[in-house]
Formats: sequence, C-alpha cells, structure tokens
Amino acid sequence: MIKLELDRKKKGIWVREPADVTSLQNGFYGSMEHGNILLTPEEVLYVMDIRNGRCFDEAGNTYTFNDTALFFLKNKKLLARYLTYKDWRDKGLIARYAEEAEGCYGRTSLKKYKGGKLELDKFAIDGIFFEDDLLTIVDDEAAGKELYERYWLGQFGTYKAAHRGRISKLDIFETIFLVKQGKLHLKNAKLSAVESAANERIKYFEDMYAVYEDWRQRGYVVKTGFKFGTHFRIYFPGASPIKEGDEWMHSRHVIHVFSRKNKLLISEWARAIRVAHSVKKTFILGLPGKKGKIKVNPKRPRLDFLLYHRKKDGIETPKTGAPRYLMYSLTEDEYIGGEELARALEECKYFGLEMMMAISDRESSVTYYLITQISLPGSDYDYYEIEWTQP
Amino acid sequence: MIKLELDRKKKGIWVREPADVTSLQNGFYGSMEHGNILLTPEEVLYVMDIRNGRCFDEAGNTYTFNDTALFFLKNKKLLARYLTYKDWRDKGLIARYAEEAEGCYGRTSLKKYKGGKLELDKFAIDGIFFEDDLLTIVDDEAAGKELYERYWLGQFGTYKAAHRGRISKLDIFETIFLVKQGKLHLKNAKLSAVESAANERIKYFEDMYAVYEDWRQRGYVVKTGFKFGTHFRIYFPGASPIKEGDEWMHSRHVIHVFSRKNKLLISEWARAIRVAHSVKKTFILGLPGKKGKIKVNPKRPRLDFLLYHRKKDGIETPKTGAPRYLMYSLTEDEYIGGEELARALEECKYFGLEMMMAISDRESSVTYYLITQISLPGSDYDYYEIEWTQP
Repeated sequence: MIKLELDRKKKGIWVREPADVTSLQNGFYGSMEHGNILLTPEEVLYVMDIRNGRCFDEAGNTYTFNDTALFFLKNKKLLARYLTYKDWRDKGLIARYAEEAEGCYGRTSLKKYKGGKLELDKFAIDGIFFEDDLLTIVDDEAAGKELYERYWLGQFGTYKAAHRGRISKLDIFETIFLVKQGKLHLKNAKLSAVESAANERIKYFEDMYAVYEDWRQRGYVVKTGFKFGTHFRIYFPGASPIKEGDEWMHSRHVIHVFSRKNKLLISEWARAIRVAHSVKKTFILGLPGKKGKIKVNPKRPRLDFLLYHRKKDGIETPKTGAPRYLMYSLTEDEYIGGEELARALEECKYFGLEMMMAISDRESSVTYYLITQISLPGSDYDYYEIEWTQP
Repeated sequence: MIKLELDRKKKGIWVREPADVTSLQNGFYGSMEHGNILLTPEEVLYVMDIRNGRCFDEAGNTYTFNDTALFFLKNKKLLARYLTYKDWRDKGLIARYAEEAEGCYGRTSLKKYKGGKLELDKFAIDGIFFEDDLLTIVDDEAAGKELYERYWLGQFGTYKAAHRGRISKLDIFETIFLVKQGKLHLKNAKLSAVESAANERIKYFEDMYAVYEDWRQRGYVVKTGFKFGTHFRIYFPGASPIKEGDEWMHSRHVIHVFSRKNKLLISEWARAIRVAHSVKKTFILGLPGKKGKIKVNPKRPRLDFLLYHRKKDGIETPKTGAPRYLMYSLTEDEYIGGEELARALEECKYFGLEMMMAISDRESSVTYYLITQISLPGSDYDYYEIEWTQP
C-alpha cells in the first residue's frame, strides 16, 4: 500500500512514508519538496487505481477513488487526461506534465515532399457545367483525351476503361482550376456561378479548393479520395493514368482538408484516418489558409503531457534522456477545431517535439496518432502526416 | 452508327431506322410507339456516348453530346442518373425507369436477428459523473466487476486487462441506461443534468440513445464502435467480456445511427460503411423514431431505376424475368437525409425490391451498396444491413 496524505492547508496530496517516497521517486512521479512528494491529480488517481494507493486526511478519514476525484472535478477533461496518462504509464513509459517542457528538444523530423511546377500547354476547350451534379462534360473527344492522358485532368471515357466512351468528365475542382487557368470555357455558366454552386453544396469549399490547387500547381495529380474515405488522393509529379504494362498506377497518399474554421468530432476525424490506414495509404492532413502569428506560452501549454519513450536499452527518463513527444489527450466524444489544432501543432514546433494524439474511447481503450510535419516546397500551407501508431 | 432523331413537335428523341430499332429493342432501350422507339434522356446519352449514336434534327443539323444534354439540363441530378445507368448497362445488365415498376415483385429478403430480453438483477450502485468527459466512475470494486462480467456494462479495470485496476468506467449510454433502470445512483448529478450534457455534446443524442436502449433491452451487448468507425458495435445475447480459452469475443456487427432529422454527405456516409467493410463487420444502419405513415406514389417513384440482374444462365430481362433491385442514383457530393432515406426504403418495400444505392464519384466510378431490411423482434425501429457489393 502507498499512503497518500491529503493536506487541506497546503492544498495537495502528499506521499511522506520514506519507502513510498523512494518507490515513487524511482518511477518519476510527482515533485519532491523537503523529502516529501507532491502528486498531480492524474498521478494521485493512477496510484490509487493501479498501485494500491490509499488516501487519508489529517484526521485519519479514508477517501475512496471517487472521494478523491471529487476534489479535481472542476479540472478540464480530467478523465481524458487521466486515462491517456494511465495508458502511457501502463506501457511502462514515463509521462510528466507538459508544463515541465523547457526550450527546444530538437526531436522532430520533417517529411520532405518533392516540389514541382505544373506546365500547361496553350489550349482552349469548351464544356457544359451541370450544376446539380457539380460536373463538367467535354464532348470534344480529342481534347478530352489529351487533357486526361497528358495531365490526368478529368476522366475520359469510362473509369479504368478510357477507350469506352467519347466524353470527358471534369470534377468541380478541375472545372474551376481550368477555368481560372483560361483553358476551359463553359458554354452555360460563369466562374462565379460555378463557385457559388460549389460553395453552396460543399462545406468549406474554398479551403478544399485551396489545397487542391496548391498540390496541382506543384505538379501533383489530385483526384477524388472517395474510395479511400478522404477528400483527395494524390500522385507524385509525372504520374499518368495510362496503364504501364499490366499495372495501374496506385496512389500512396490521401489528403484530408481540415479548415481552420471547422470543428470535427474526434470519432469522425479518427474514422477518416482509419480508412486510409486500412488501405495502406499515408494520411495527409491539410490546414489551408495563411498562418496567423501564433503565440506560444511555454508556461501554460495547451498540450497535456511530456512523453518519454523507449531507447535501445530501455526507456527514456527525465534523468537520463529527453522527452520525445507532447501528448494531446482526447476522448472520442470531444470536438477538435482546425485553428485549435494548428495552435497545438505550433506549440509542438516550439518545443521541438512531435505530437502524439491520444484518444480514449468510451471503453477507455486508447488509440494513438503520431503527427509529423511535411515540407512541400513553395507551399504556404501546413501539411502533416498522421500515422496510427502503437507506441 | 445509330441515328437519333430530334422531334421538336413531339418533344423527344426517336430512333426510326429499322436496323437501329431492332438493335435497341433487343437491348431493351426506350419504348416502342408505332414501330419507332422513343428514348429516355439517359438512354439518349448512353447511345451517343457508348453506342456511336448521332443526333440530328428535322433540318439535318447535327447535335453533339453536350448539345443534346442541354435539352435535359433542367432534369434533376441528370449526370448522377446517367452515370449510374451507364455503369449498370456497361456490366451488360438492363436498367429501366423506376416508373415502370408495377405491383409487388416479392424479391426482398429479411435478415432475421435473434430477439431476447435483458434481465437485470436487483442491485444498487453509486457513481460519480464526470460531465466534461461524459463518463461515470464506479469505485466499488466488487460491484463494478460484477456489472462488467455479468452484463458487460462498463469497463472494469483496464481494457483487455480487467485485472489491472479497481475502478469501473461507464460510458454515457450505460450511465443513462442504468440510472433509468434504477440501478445506478449518481452522487453528483441528476439524470436530467446528465442528459442535457449528452445532448449538448453529441448530435442527435436522443436517437443514438434510443438505438442503444433498443438493442440492450433485447439482450444484446452494445459497446462503442470507435475502433470500427461507427457509433456502436454489438454482440449477440449471452456475450461475455471474459476471455474464453485464449480468444476474445469478437463482434461481427456495427451499428450506425442515422437520425431522421440528420442530413449526411454521401462521401461521409460511405466512409463509415467502408471502415466496417475493411474490418469485415456487418454494417447495420439504424433509423430510430416511430415511423410516420409514409405514402408511396407508385406513379411517381423517388427511386431512379428498375434494375434487372443476372440469373443462372444469363441475364434477367423485362421479357423473361423480373427486376431485382431499385436503384438510388447519387454522387459523392450529394446529401442524403434520414427521412428521405426512410421514404425511399418504404418505396422499395412497396414494390418488393431491395435498394441498390449507386454512388458515382467525381471520376464517374460507381460504388454499390445493397440495403436489406432486418427484423429485430419487438423493436419499433427500422434497421438495415448495408453491404458493399459489386453486382
């Protein structure tokens, strides 16, 4: 048994028995003051839940887990924090409050993506825009075929059977892109009408289009990600829709656009990442829009825990190593906003640590997503790879 | 070449050349009038796109695909209908207008689910509700363990390691269910406060809870579907969280709740079905709420096409067989409402045909979902199995 002592005057829960102090000190729990250890709320709950801790007050009254938790009931997302803290600790790894982070740990990596530039030849094609379906049809067979084969713009003929049929279908992103480039003339609609039809139907369309254009202009091929549960899938510059040998070109990356104005339920957000994972694609999160200057307050971080991970011959500790990640503690029923996430990621950059998103579901099972920044030469936007991981 | 003749007076596009008439008649296109064939808009587009059709008016002017399509531009979801019609035809199968459906074809099947009844013994337990995390903690070790082991209510100890830890966590559905049953007393919150916290956070919570309670009361175990991208996963009556031999019990069904008041983007809807498919679970759609009397107007169906499928020795045709499905033609950027879907499904029941949802993505690739009704004895709600299929 570990004896926890509630000190109402000093407002805190202390460990004072020498054997307990040594044991908790070796495990990197709490902070030492004059030979005693002061525990954080999550540490208190963990010691009571898992390490046979018992809590008493000065008068010798005992407090159950819930009696003790009631003291912290006003703490924001107490259980989200406790359950993700617990899971990390249960893996034999060390977690400390993010407030202890100091300076830049230089432990982030940057995924480098190839830059490029789309060069469109001079051409002019006509099309009809179908507002109700957000599609444009080009019925000039030769022009539609060339557009498809050279730039992979539109779908000529039939999907995966381009020889079948004579028309080409341009999706709403391709339509606007080509009209803006002065290559496509719509016989029955103006650009502004197409854009307002798109804005009316598709939420955060402007942000979706910004991401589409950003990658297209760098030479990437950007097509619907419908089959993979995301907004777009991409192919690297130079990709072609024409079968090489017996093989179709496969995309390896999907992009999900997260508008800074949007708020997403964590379970919906996780669902998109899951589909990408199940089809073995790399999931890219796009946060379009120019970054405002985000101020990081190192004394009051938004993130929850400083995570120490493993090293070759054991685990990292505050004594012998440096933290590896910052944990963002969440539950499946919470919401996350685009702007909020952008700010949290800025904080990670400040401390030179990668973000480990930890989601505790309704059964207290924790799922982890590791977030790594992407460098896409020439782009003003923020992109991140998100990877489902088991730390 | 098939010659299509635009008749402005009779407002339609006709085929009159005898060889063309025979060919199209054999393929079950259009409707015969005095030896000529009148085509529907989708048939016209198909013949022009795929079967080398050319369109002319009385004066001998020629019309391209787009020129012709312009006549139908006001038709609702013209391309959604055309592209899904085309895909079905491209498979060598026959599709006709849903308006031709007559009477009840008796071709639906019903997935029968076991009925049951949850019997809870007399007990009373205490808990603390954590509003910010929508979880309840029970710290009476024996009571929490029994609740978990006997009814699989809550998560005792640690997920997949119940021996680790002493507390039990009840999710928001379990919390409300047990309070309503008079088995759980929350020391710090009233039922109404718990319900309003849930309503505030979770969209359509009342419908979500209705589905939860409906299956729980029939003896099913209902837990979070977070890992499978849906609202719930279920286990059949009698399921236990206790490992049998070396095997965990695996759920085979997930439930997604679609409120009649909700509207879902098709791509979001498809994403949920895709995750379930990728983890080999049966996807159940729940449409809670009492059904209003839905009137079906057989002359003006909501659904798009009457689909003839295959049979042992070939394909079904309007001559030799009966239709198998009703097609609901959609694109990935459309929305579908719960009430709208309920009405469309009612129409399928009326005609005795199953619904084949056909979704044309931005590249005109079509994905099919087959919807089959479930019978759950005692339930007032509508449930359907949705299966990704390649017809």
